[in-house]
Amino acid sequence: MHVLVIGAAGMVGRKLVEKIATAPTILGRDIERLTLADAFEPVVPAALQPVAQTMTVDLAAPGTAEALVADRPDIIIHLAAIVSGEAEADFDKGYAVNLDGTRALFEAIRDEGQREPYVPRVVFASSIAVFGAPFHEVISEDFFTTPLTSYGTQKAIAELLLADYSRRGIFDGVGIRLPTICIRPGTPNKAASGFFSNILREPLVGKEAVLPVSENVRHWFASPRSAVGFFVHAATMDTGPIGPRRNLTMPGLSALVGEEIEALRRVAGEKAVALIRREADPVIERIVAGWPTNFDARRAESLGFKAEKTFDEIIRIHIEDELGGSLS
Amino acid sequence: MHVLVIGAAGMVGRKLVEKIATAPTILGRDIERLTLADAFEPVVPAALQPVAQTMTVDLAAPGTAEALVADRPDIIIHLAAIVSGEAEADFDKGYAVNLDGTRALFEAIRDEGQREPYVPRVVFASSIAVFGAPFHEVISEDFFTTPLTSYGTQKAIAELLLADYSRRGIFDGVGIRLPTICIRPGTPNKAASGFFSNILREPLVGKEAVLPVSENVRHWFASPRSAVGFFVHAATMDTGPIGPRRNLTMPGLSALVGEEIEALRRVAGEKAVALIRREADPVIERIVAGWPTNFDARRAESLGFKAEKTFDEIIRIHIEDELGGSLS
Repeated sequence: MHVLVIGAAGMVGRKLVEKIATAPTILGRDIERLTLADAFEPVVPAALQPVAQTMTVDLAAPGTAEALVADRPDIIIHLAAIVSGEAEADFDKGYAVNLDGTRALFEAIRDEGQREPYVPRVVFASSIAVFGAPFHEVISEDFFTTPLTSYGTQKAIAELLLADYSRRGIFDGVGIRLPTICIRPGTPNKAASGFFSNILREPLVGKEAVLPVSENVRHWFASPRSAVGFFVHAATMDTGPIGPRRNLTMPGLSALVGEEIEALRRVAGEKAVALIRREADPVIERIVAGWPTNFDARRAESLGFKAEKTFDEIIRIHIEDELGGSLS
Repeated sequence: MHVLVIGAAGMVGRKLVEKIATAPTILGRDIERLTLADAFEPVVPAALQPVAQTMTVDLAAPGTAEALVADRPDIIIHLAAIVSGEAEADFDKGYAVNLDGTRALFEAIRDEGQREPYVPRVVFASSIAVFGAPFHEVISEDFFTTPLTSYGTQKAIAELLLADYSRRGIFDGVGIRLPTICIRPGTPNKAASGFFSNILREPLVGKEAVLPVSENVRHWFASPRSAVGFFVHAATMDTGPIGPRRNLTMPGLSALVGEEIEALRRVAGEKAVALIRREADPVIERIVAGWPTNFDARRAESLGFKAEKTFDEIIRIHIEDELGGSLS
């Protein structure tokens, strides 16, 4: 089997590739070929050296999509995107990659299929940014997509294309809307959502972190491990029961910032909590106020997607996956 | 003021142009210039000869969008589309016109605005085909768009673009989702929805018409006169109260085929009703079963859009506008 991961150098992409390295049949069959593509050179784990090839590509450049599907991968996992902030700052670049690049990929698959029958599984990383405030307290499965960013618009358009190309039998697509990933590994960054991870990740290793919003802010979370699980499941599941509504809001945990902090207290004690410095940031407060807080994700759950039920679990996963299994 | 109508040779486009001919200030100010564009040569009513110019164009062809906006129209009413059946039969053509042509128009406006400030009103004809079954009995204002045709997909994508370009201040857009227009003037055609009009229009002039579905089929209607009114209102309204959710399901009348027939009986008597020949068509029955039957359109109503409340009214409008005001 040939698997193509586009966006393999990103955080979720890297973790997905690491998962495949430790569990080589996780995508159902032996992988004879694994193509890792990204705008940055992807890392190939040692165990995958015999089957992996890397491609450093610009998805928006002419010919890239055709080159990616020329060898007819059986499973295509498309994680590549210009992120929210950049897509908002650079209108043309966001549309070129997130809309045109994705559509070029879908069209290249169609061209291959017109040459000779070819219907790969396509898993597309969408986002809860397809939704825009005001929201109901719990966002229902059939709530409309009215994005308030160009990034969200581009993801919502790609979802529509994915559903239409799947309905037409051009490929077998599943769009998955990721919750905010927490705890994001790495170092604090400037993303408006960064603090949700920072206030756990940094205190767990004895470092200070800034909390720019109130403890009463509610948001929607899943661990990086769950995110990898979503992609694996979407790549291997029976798509028959999905029907034409191909884009799914992934399950997650709806929790308050205060609940994150209580979980931190239980896992790492008062001294960890004391490292959270409260420093209100009205800009971030305003951005976060427009974000969704809770979803009804029963449909994805009934289709076999799973996420964490508590923040204790999310913290424990971080300790296992990033900190060698225990706090020092 | 300069007004551009794209799709001016279609049924609603023609009626809109006729309305402007009889009420020249209906779009708010005197029209100094009226550009009528379509793939077919549009008809110019005598009263508009001094201000009108026609353009016969292919919206999907390179340079068309730029040529349409080169003279910076103040109001752009975009009605042009490859219709549902053709967009389903010809994948490339549907996407080329309905998606790429519309996006090229939006981009041409953006280019003009980057040269020199320019923020026209853009009114876009969308469709209830953005929705896909299964539905609730009444489709709420925040129901999601999961189209089951490529045409509906293209309209839903154009809606997303319209909202994003409006949010960005590139233009001031309003997307209006038209109900099924009834009574459509002309002769019976092969559109699956044709019978809704045929069973009234034909008997009103003493001709037979075929009813291929049961009298218990419910659907969502507005008259051609209402459709013109929607476009006029969208072109002239204060868009401040709309906010970022720029696409509106227009008001309409939810009615059973049986209610259409009862209205026909009241207006034109038993002899008209006797001209309806029942001839079940399983193909049309199946298509129609996937169509929406009723909408909550209070948002559009609160923004000033109006439609008929009874089928008697819809028939009376047809008699006034198409049959000279009385039955012969």
